[in-house]
Amino acid sequence: MEAQYNIIGKSIIRTDSLSKVTGRAEYTADLKLPRMLHAKVLRSPYPHARILNIDVSKALKLPGVKAVVTGADTYGVRWGVFKYTQDHTMLAIDKVRYVGEDVAGVAAIDQETAMEALDLIKVDYEPLPAVFDPEEAMKEGAPLIHEQYPNNINIHVHIETGDVDEAFARSDLIREDTFQAAGEAYATLEPYAVVASYANGYLDLWMPNAGPHVRAKALANLLKMPLNRVRVRHINIGGHFGSRSEVSPGDLVTALLSIKTGRPVKLVLTREENATATRQIHDIKATIKTGVKKDGTILAKEFRVIYDGGAYSSTGPIATSIPYYVYEEAYRFQNVRYDGYRVITNKGIRGMYGCHGRAFLCGNEMQLDIIAHELGMDPMEIRLKNGIKVGEETATKSLIISGGLEEPIKQAAERAKWQEKRPKMGDGRGIGMGCVAVMCGFPMGFRSGSACYVRINDDGQATIVTGIVDTGMGNESMAVQVASEVLGIPVEEINVVNANTEVTNLDPGAYSQAAAFVGCNAVKRACEEAKRQILAIASEKMNIPAEDLDLQDRMVISKSDPSKSMPMRWIVREAFFRGTPIAATGAYIPKIDFQREWVKRPFGQMAGTFSFGCSVAEVNVDKETGRIHIPRIVAAHDCGNPINTMAVEGQIEGSVVQAGVGAIMEENRWSEGWLLNPDFLEYKVPLACDMPEIEPVIVRSFDPEGPFGAKEGGLTVRMNAYSAVACAAHQALGITLKEFPLTPDRVFKAIEAAKKEGG
Amino acid sequence: MEAQYNIIGKSIIRTDSLSKVTGRAEYTADLKLPRMLHAKVLRSPYPHARILNIDVSKALKLPGVKAVVTGADTYGVRWGVFKYTQDHTMLAIDKVRYVGEDVAGVAAIDQETAMEALDLIKVDYEPLPAVFDPEEAMKEGAPLIHEQYPNNINIHVHIETGDVDEAFARSDLIREDTFQAAGEAYATLEPYAVVASYANGYLDLWMPNAGPHVRAKALANLLKMPLNRVRVRHINIGGHFGSRSEVSPGDLVTALLSIKTGRPVKLVLTREENATATRQIHDIKATIKTGVKKDGTILAKEFRVIYDGGAYSSTGPIATSIPYYVYEEAYRFQNVRYDGYRVITNKGIRGMYGCHGRAFLCGNEMQLDIIAHELGMDPMEIRLKNGIKVGEETATKSLIISGGLEEPIKQAAERAKWQEKRPKMGDGRGIGMGCVAVMCGFPMGFRSGSACYVRINDDGQATIVTGIVDTGMGNESMAVQVASEVLGIPVEEINVVNANTEVTNLDPGAYSQAAAFVGCNAVKRACEEAKRQILAIASEKMNIPAEDLDLQDRMVISKSDPSKSMPMRWIVREAFFRGTPIAATGAYIPKIDFQREWVKRPFGQMAGTFSFGCSVAEVNVDKETGRIHIPRIVAAHDCGNPINTMAVEGQIEGSVVQAGVGAIMEENRWSEGWLLNPDFLEYKVPLACDMPEIEPVIVRSFDPEGPFGAKEGGLTVRMNAYSAVACAAHQALGITLKEFPLTPDRVFKAIEAAKKEGG
Repeated sequence: MEAQYNIIGKSIIRTDSLSKVTGRAEYTADLKLPRMLHAKVLRSPYPHARILNIDVSKALKLPGVKAVVTGADTYGVRWGVFKYTQDHTMLAIDKVRYVGEDVAGVAAIDQETAMEALDLIKVDYEPLPAVFDPEEAMKEGAPLIHEQYPNNINIHVHIETGDVDEAFARSDLIREDTFQAAGEAYATLEPYAVVASYANGYLDLWMPNAGPHVRAKALANLLKMPLNRVRVRHINIGGHFGSRSEVSPGDLVTALLSIKTGRPVKLVLTREENATATRQIHDIKATIKTGVKKDGTILAKEFRVIYDGGAYSSTGPIATSIPYYVYEEAYRFQNVRYDGYRVITNKGIRGMYGCHGRAFLCGNEMQLDIIAHELGMDPMEIRLKNGIKVGEETATKSLIISGGLEEPIKQAAERAKWQEKRPKMGDGRGIGMGCVAVMCGFPMGFRSGSACYVRINDDGQATIVTGIVDTGMGNESMAVQVASEVLGIPVEEINVVNANTEVTNLDPGAYSQAAAFVGCNAVKRACEEAKRQILAIASEKMNIPAEDLDLQDRMVISKSDPSKSMPMRWIVREAFFRGTPIAATGAYIPKIDFQREWVKRPFGQMAGTFSFGCSVAEVNVDKETGRIHIPRIVAAHDCGNPINTMAVEGQIEGSVVQAGVGAIMEENRWSEGWLLNPDFLEYKVPLACDMPEIEPVIVRSFDPEGPFGAKEGGLTVRMNAYSAVACAAHQALGITLKEFPLTPDRVFKAIEAAKKEGG
Repeated sequence: MEAQYNIIGKSIIRTDSLSKVTGRAEYTADLKLPRMLHAKVLRSPYPHARILNIDVSKALKLPGVKAVVTGADTYGVRWGVFKYTQDHTMLAIDKVRYVGEDVAGVAAIDQETAMEALDLIKVDYEPLPAVFDPEEAMKEGAPLIHEQYPNNINIHVHIETGDVDEAFARSDLIREDTFQAAGEAYATLEPYAVVASYANGYLDLWMPNAGPHVRAKALANLLKMPLNRVRVRHINIGGHFGSRSEVSPGDLVTALLSIKTGRPVKLVLTREENATATRQIHDIKATIKTGVKKDGTILAKEFRVIYDGGAYSSTGPIATSIPYYVYEEAYRFQNVRYDGYRVITNKGIRGMYGCHGRAFLCGNEMQLDIIAHELGMDPMEIRLKNGIKVGEETATKSLIISGGLEEPIKQAAERAKWQEKRPKMGDGRGIGMGCVAVMCGFPMGFRSGSACYVRINDDGQATIVTGIVDTGMGNESMAVQVASEVLGIPVEEINVVNANTEVTNLDPGAYSQAAAFVGCNAVKRACEEAKRQILAIASEKMNIPAEDLDLQDRMVISKSDPSKSMPMRWIVREAFFRGTPIAATGAYIPKIDFQREWVKRPFGQMAGTFSFGCSVAEVNVDKETGRIHIPRIVAAHDCGNPINTMAVEGQIEGSVVQAGVGAIMEENRWSEGWLLNPDFLEYKVPLACDMPEIEPVIVRSFDPEGPFGAKEGGLTVRMNAYSAVACAAHQALGITLKEFPLTPDRVFKAIEAAKKEGG
């Protein structure tokens, strides 16, 4: 049931575009505050060591140094998502557990002085045996990194439903494979930065962050301050991808330094620090067992997945389960057993990722292709058969209310000329398909909802105050578009105040695509209430029933007789005169009944709705070098009814680059706890020369819960383009690739190994 | 009907006190923004001249100069309160009309470069005849300063009611006197400063200003920008007293420079510029004719008042009528004719004043003392007889709903030992009394009201978003106190977001004491609605009717059985869960039916309510030198039910200093259009050595409309302490003093003149 909209679905230029393309947009590192100091952090040179003593006296004597903080300055509060994963004091107290861990922070009059002071801090370490491989870490006798995690197992997620063993027993074909993928870097163009300003008992903070309210709450806890005294403020964000989800040691260090000095303090990480000392992405090893019927119907799935978590819990509980959920949201099956283990190692901390468990999904898709091949089916056919549909429930009882996997598959296949090309491929050329579904909104308890306050000024222009945060995807713009549609005023006449924990109400943040589905629903409701207020007064003034009135082009008009109209501004002023200004609050929380202790009892409606996507990639593989070239990727994504078509296409395109092209080059490389490629010379991100032809396909559905039918825009592609490239490489080579990313060395080795097996 | 309150009426430390006394509070001049430029203004050296040409080419060539703006860069929009007083382009276009007028603005990389650039701007002037005395300016043949004001009469306010001539005819005693008073400086400790930052089509502004919404609207008009693109932001304000009421040339200059350069621009006026090129206070000459019955009852009043307006209209319409209104609000009379003329002269612009027409009031009070003397009455007795009472109407039909003049007179007299001391005084020692009433809130059309948005965070702490602006009197604190009372949470757990035109709703600003009466009523209503939402959910959770529930100490408690309680935070979280966060809007607009074209038809309810006050001063006059010494001032002020007792006392004390002590020293001195004393060496403000013993007396009433019965705190004293000192000097000397302020030279001359008359 799509309606005709004035602005929804239009490709409008994002409100933040101009300032970003002209270089005028301000990021945290650009901030200047009166009397501001500069901070630097002393980091652990050991992957695992006991701290015997820290002597900061010499550093404090250096002229220009205003304060030094160490673990002793914290309250010893440990951060973690759940009580049982709270393990990170953010400044090391007893031990360091990875190279780069924050040991001390210095605030000085300039960066150079702060750096000089770092050299004057004397830390006595007692090195401890370290462990870097999660499977080694799980063995008896491995060095124990945290006392509270026996065998270094930080989190174990067990999900089981149906009768898995019986289902395998009646399967016609069972296949078990183990896939392995190196973790990646977020490679945000903006290195992490924080400005903290403590004055008058209030702490103001600016940093690139995807969830201001969650961040403020975490810092209030760490600092033992009341929540209303910690205010996270709005600032532009230069890349997120999951890396800006959680409270960061830099936040605490900067805040403590500002509290100690009573002056604003700025910390800007170097590129190398950004890579080693902010969060990274989990390495994954997944054993996947699938049982199917002859016709390709999936009967049973069994998973054992090991996540290399690095030194602390971080958002591990989420990272350890989401890969499974986004899989079951795409495919229909009833019998499943999932065991996810997150293991602590002496490496950098692994956190949230916009494409959690990409390698896990890739393994599933690769295996599905192998199964299809063994059954003599087309990979598209087996996906269409098992793809979940509207009205069906996932294995853990989430109902699908819009979309489904069929349309994205069909539309991607059509645009990619799948039927025509697939049979012709092979022998160095391949075409592959990857599918996935993602949740829109996320079970975060009472933090799952969003609220918006809207006010109309005396010239009839609106301000919306919303918790929505824009980490670069155009969320602010989208909120404006929704408000514009409801209020009948142009987007230029709407301001957004957001990502400011003092003035905005709770919002889940830019996790799991909540902005479009959750945040914009709140914006829509607030504006609808404001509209109701306007029409009520207009009805009286115009002597026309409110039901016959509408807002268009800054006017209140009669729907039945458009010649009758009145400037909306007049009504707004009349409302001020009456002492009832046009101002309204609207809120939305998704209909989630997921068990709150969801790691333990993971059943129920997981999210308000789900998006579906299918990517199709073409590749050429150079068998001599193992190098993959990707000429074309078609990515079809079901975003419901798109709010800003151009923005959705932009998200799809960016996702193709990150996942599809990233699949052949991006990985963090390690040696004895040291990250070997912490900069952009060594860490390969896709460049212009690596770009395939990208064809974004917007699959339209109309979500009954979404604002104007909208869901999120683009995330499925950030997961499935990786699989599409891998599956294409599989067809191109005719060999199963089990180690990711598909860098030339891995591909070459796989080709050589296949030759040996074959020979 | 006073109730018992938890926090209302308590003397709490203001939320801004700590930062101000420790020097941490940031003012506009402290702001630093990335890439910020510094501005300087080229000013007119002539009181009246035609601009033939402005050549900025050399200035633009100076390295470090980024932009120059002149009148040609404006849109030629003229600012003024009413259409017919719009006469000020803020940057001179055709003519300059006073010494110090803004001719050109320069933005450069630092102040020194900007100052150097000023010297490189070549302006060709053709000097014109100037006129400095308003009565000279009104004469035929005087130089015409603005084409549209014949005889340089800018504004003529005529108010007439009753039968004035008949009333004089039946008077037993008629007295006519002419009083004259020099204008004063606002003498704000903070020189005026502006930071403007234009980016992305939005203009952000910080400046000390008493009415952010009014300021934003004026600038939007001057810049022809949509209102939502001009955002006036919160900043501390170092003194107001009326001087920060209106849009200022510096605002426009800085904004234009920022728009031209795309960079933030800061302008900080020097002490001298602050005195000459921001607003000043009107010189007044008032002829007052009063007719009374034998028993002292005032029968008729006739006024002819000339206001020296300086070069432009400014807020002249207000300044030309308010002195009359605050007089009629204090005393009962039916027959009155008031003619107020505001005359343009070639001097600095005169604007709003917290103590509008102080000298006019002083003249009235002096004359009343003379009349009392002639009738053989005590000055207190004649004031008690004529003082307006609750339930009565002013001459122009404003109803008095609380307070009245009697209590302040009685309480001040009692504390000052009037009955005991008055008869003993004379011969160099005197005691005098001054009375006045002031409006709380002000007829500003739909801008007379205020609205507040309140939200409660997930820890149960509140943020109030209110238009209330704090120009140094503690308004923010007061709003917090009101919210604390309603919500049952401590003041430390309430944040205020205010004086920010983007996010707050319309508010009249800190004019006419609207903050307590209007703004806090809105805060109260918003919090009451939030409380209603909380109790509704609590009622359900606790199974207790909402009527039996209350909020206290962060808890919801049963009034009938206080053992039944629940933390308010739980309810707030439950509300988030339900998708209905606790958030509410409340608004208040005073019940004003004053005619909007109020200069022309000035009748009806002028304000929501009125405050009343009486000051009693003791003086000693040195007859040899004319120097007055003030040992003691008692000031009684009816503030309704005080919100913050200490803050009201502070306001009373400050007002005594400004008006009572200022009455013997403060004046602007002029010569041929040049201000002779633009700095604190030459302009005398009261110092510690000048301080009398001050006794603030809070007169309590309970205003039926005010929030918790409150009205405003202290303004009456800022008007009547001046009169009290003058009346005391009158008793001390036994001669009528008609020229103010009562500097030693004026007093000495009056003594000499009286000697001559006597001799």
